[in-house]
Amino acid sequence: MTASREIRINMILFAGLTQLDLTGPHEVLVRMPGARIELVGESLAPVVSARGLAIVPTATRQSVAPADLLVVPGGRGVDQAIIDPAWVSFMREAAASARWVFGICTGTLLLGAAGVLRGRRATGHWLARDLLSRFGANVCDERIVIDGNIYTSGGVTAGIDMALRVVADLAGEETAKRIQLQIEYDPEPPFRAGTPFVAAPGLVASLRQEDAERRTRLEAAVAQAAASLAAS
Amino acid sequence: MTASREIRINMILFAGLTQLDLTGPHEVLVRMPGARIELVGESLAPVVSARGLAIVPTATRQSVAPADLLVVPGGRGVDQAIIDPAWVSFMREAAASARWVFGICTGTLLLGAAGVLRGRRATGHWLARDLLSRFGANVCDERIVIDGNIYTSGGVTAGIDMALRVVADLAGEETAKRIQLQIEYDPEPPFRAGTPFVAAPGLVASLRQEDAERRTRLEAAVAQAAASLAAS
Repeated sequence: MTASREIRINMILFAGLTQLDLTGPHEVLVRMPGARIELVGESLAPVVSARGLAIVPTATRQSVAPADLLVVPGGRGVDQAIIDPAWVSFMREAAASARWVFGICTGTLLLGAAGVLRGRRATGHWLARDLLSRFGANVCDERIVIDGNIYTSGGVTAGIDMALRVVADLAGEETAKRIQLQIEYDPEPPFRAGTPFVAAPGLVASLRQEDAERRTRLEAAVAQAAASLAAS
Repeated sequence: MTASREIRINMILFAGLTQLDLTGPHEVLVRMPGARIELVGESLAPVVSARGLAIVPTATRQSVAPADLLVVPGGRGVDQAIIDPAWVSFMREAAASARWVFGICTGTLLLGAAGVLRGRRATGHWLARDLLSRFGANVCDERIVIDGNIYTSGGVTAGIDMALRVVADLAGEETAKRIQLQIEYDPEPPFRAGTPFVAAPGLVASLRQEDAERRTRLEAAVAQAAASLAAS
């Protein structure tokens, strides 16, 4: 084994995140030799996920040092974060100074709001990825998309697949395979229902209907964020 | 949609857990209609995972009410938890009063230490599942194993697969598929390296070697826990 250089990773932790967007990639990335992860909150108070799991930040936007890799989860809280000037300006600066940027699920909208995805190929959660076009991204219907130094993934669990790709690029395929074996990642999804392209049309329609109210809120937030971005 | 009955879920949160063992199933189970999850700690202080992610408990062993479903993650901290009388006696009582029990990764050793797996088919992380035999389990080399009301899964990410199975059994396949689509679980692991049966033999040997010291500690703890169980 050779000595590992340090790889600084800042993972964004905002209220109402989908915790698995963050915790899946965390479990993968933290196993990369030299990885040093900070969980960046608005303060050091625990941050509660959209569904009630509270995670403690290790740094704040003010205190954290720039990172090599910036990681941005999604979740319902994105509706607020993309119109929160404090988060958006932090993201803009953090992305500009990072060597690599990795957005998961609707977290890619936060990258979009920060102007990071203009002219770049990008994906996100299937219920919201089309909105990335409002921030100038070329939207892809793929689970994982790599455009230069920008990694974006589909909803929630796609972050695990992408995190392994990120490790392969930053630390080599052997390291990525090693981590994949450590976390016994040989998935056996019990059903064929994980994307709108394979799930039953009735189920897809039902989820879109259930999401309609949130979608309206999200569209309004995206419109506001896109206007702010255009004016910046 | 029919009104959902409440399903009480207690997830165990001990120091040094592998956080994805808990957070993966949490993201699935919390989406089950009627689910009410408690994260059960030794105290209400944040619990730090084996790799530095701190999660805040919502209840303590003393305060928490019995659950319908008991969920037990694994991780390096299992070495301590299986010889900690407070955790072992809590697990024994909690498992006895639960309708279903779900162990993930090396968390299944904690179920074993509590006497829950005697004569039952069970699995766990590939580096440690053989040790389940010390607690009277019939060890299976499978990713997910269901024996009656006892669900056990392989390492880390296997908990996501199994959580969807648990939802299918408790709330129906349609609900499980719905959650699978919400979390966009159509995995694309980048390599074929997720089990010792498909990974390169050299990689498997390397991980076993890296694990050797911990394995020695774990074997000692299992021997002590098995002796306590036999004497109880």
